[in-house]
Amino acid sequence: MSPDISTIKHYLLTLQATFCQQLQQADGGGEFVTDNWQRSEQGGGRTCALAEGAVIEKAGVNFSHVYGKKLPAAATHQRPELLDATFQAIGLSLIVHPRNPYVPTAHANIRFFVAEKPNQAPVWWFGGGFDLTPYYGFVEDCVHWHRVAQTACQPFGDEVYPQYKKWADDYFYLKHRQENRGIGGLFFDDLHRWDFNTCFAFMRSVGDHFLPAYLPIVERRKNMSYGESERKFQCYRRGRYVEFNLVYDRGTLFGLQWGGRTESILISLPPQVSWYYDWQLAPDSAEARLREDFLTPRDWLAL
Amino acid sequence: MSPDISTIKHYLLTLQATFCQQLQQADGGGEFVTDNWQRSEQGGGRTCALAEGAVIEKAGVNFSHVYGKKLPAAATHQRPELLDATFQAIGLSLIVHPRNPYVPTAHANIRFFVAEKPNQAPVWWFGGGFDLTPYYGFVEDCVHWHRVAQTACQPFGDEVYPQYKKWADDYFYLKHRQENRGIGGLFFDDLHRWDFNTCFAFMRSVGDHFLPAYLPIVERRKNMSYGESERKFQCYRRGRYVEFNLVYDRGTLFGLQWGGRTESILISLPPQVSWYYDWQLAPDSAEARLREDFLTPRDWLAL
Repeated sequence: MSPDISTIKHYLLTLQATFCQQLQQADGGGEFVTDNWQRSEQGGGRTCALAEGAVIEKAGVNFSHVYGKKLPAAATHQRPELLDATFQAIGLSLIVHPRNPYVPTAHANIRFFVAEKPNQAPVWWFGGGFDLTPYYGFVEDCVHWHRVAQTACQPFGDEVYPQYKKWADDYFYLKHRQENRGIGGLFFDDLHRWDFNTCFAFMRSVGDHFLPAYLPIVERRKNMSYGESERKFQCYRRGRYVEFNLVYDRGTLFGLQWGGRTESILISLPPQVSWYYDWQLAPDSAEARLREDFLTPRDWLAL
Repeated sequence: MSPDISTIKHYLLTLQATFCQQLQQADGGGEFVTDNWQRSEQGGGRTCALAEGAVIEKAGVNFSHVYGKKLPAAATHQRPELLDATFQAIGLSLIVHPRNPYVPTAHANIRFFVAEKPNQAPVWWFGGGFDLTPYYGFVEDCVHWHRVAQTACQPFGDEVYPQYKKWADDYFYLKHRQENRGIGGLFFDDLHRWDFNTCFAFMRSVGDHFLPAYLPIVERRKNMSYGESERKFQCYRRGRYVEFNLVYDRGTLFGLQWGGRTESILISLPPQVSWYYDWQLAPDSAEARLREDFLTPRDWLAL
């Protein structure tokens, strides 16, 4: 079956509206503003941004549908034979940076690629996932997050969640820090293991399970009181987020290499960030426990 | 003549001490702390860090002397034939992030590489330079900075300053922003155009001219009064510095790829940074003029 991009596009735009509406409601203060943008002959997109909300310090929900004559290296990691193919890419990505250090940062992305070379059948694949980055770890939040991730995968086979959970642990990893970005979730790429309709259904299941995974955690943590020291630690840890996105993240590098809209791509960067040289955390503090107990891959569903 | 690394090492360590002593004196409040570090079989270094000084919000002066069995890709940009050669790298780098937005950020680096392959003569080269990143532009500062850069190059030929000035303009460029990082200065790499002694003398000239280029600008600007809005703009512009260092900077990528000491490599990142989505500056404001009048390559010595 040949890929039906208009159906995917409709789904992604509807999900974008749902994300914005639900996040705005959870925030109770801020409002998303929408920028529609076009690049002649290269496609366009719709970027929704919320700044300085009551709960959310910065959030972005990006839809884009772009096409090009040359698939960038960052998109063909596992498909070197497609370097230089013409391509279409359509996707939705979300980032939420809450103000309260007890509320974790969340990221989700779902995307679809078609690449074509002369006299060859189109090659298509899906990619995506979601991952959570706490500043202070709560086991019940991690268990909830991964339980919903498992639920999203369950209809597609028992092996799917463990595979894509492990892929997230492997992918969201800062090699130079020897540290995971957060507690992971799901990550998949080059997905064409099932027929088109099943792959598309899987992508929708991941997209549809993001809010049920995240919003209960936001509700549980958003009114916890915090002080300057928790805020300082949050801003410091956000530095790791920047390091990951600019040094390793395939979507970010794809966008920057391809010449995408920089403001939409880098909306993922946190609003306030600090770097201190060689900051040593007090042993046994909650801050030190984050790394030891939460930023190392664990089987959260075995707890 | 075969390269004499101990002489280079002595020069770099002496210059490091001078940098710290002079910057500390200019600061008048903060103090550098020194970390000596070793990696077994991979060399070591000396990192000097100053935080929360009176004038300097964060500064780092790094000496390192490392060796390895496999030259990383980032170091062999122009020398693919040396991929996999064993190597030694010795260098000094400096970064100063002042607190006052009217004082520019400064960076300097000088380095020496030797690469060896079995049954081949050692290949050596020098690299380095210095560049200035203002938040608010002052023409007289730019002219002074480039005049000292020219003075550093003058004994080595009239063509040297224009060449390495242009290389800095080309190198310190954020492609995804279509914007230069700052007003440039000098950049050189793969330097072996003269004999070893002359190349080493040139590297020393660059190293010795950094403080005369920078300190008069610090003195001129450090007592200018500023408010929240200038500080906000400084923290926002520092985001560009982070983007450059993590996405493009060869030294940073070399260090991270090779598995260097992360805290020493990333000491270059600013202490407080902000990213706002699609911030629009007021037309004709000092903030808007920075980009138009200062972040586009100019011949500052023709003014």
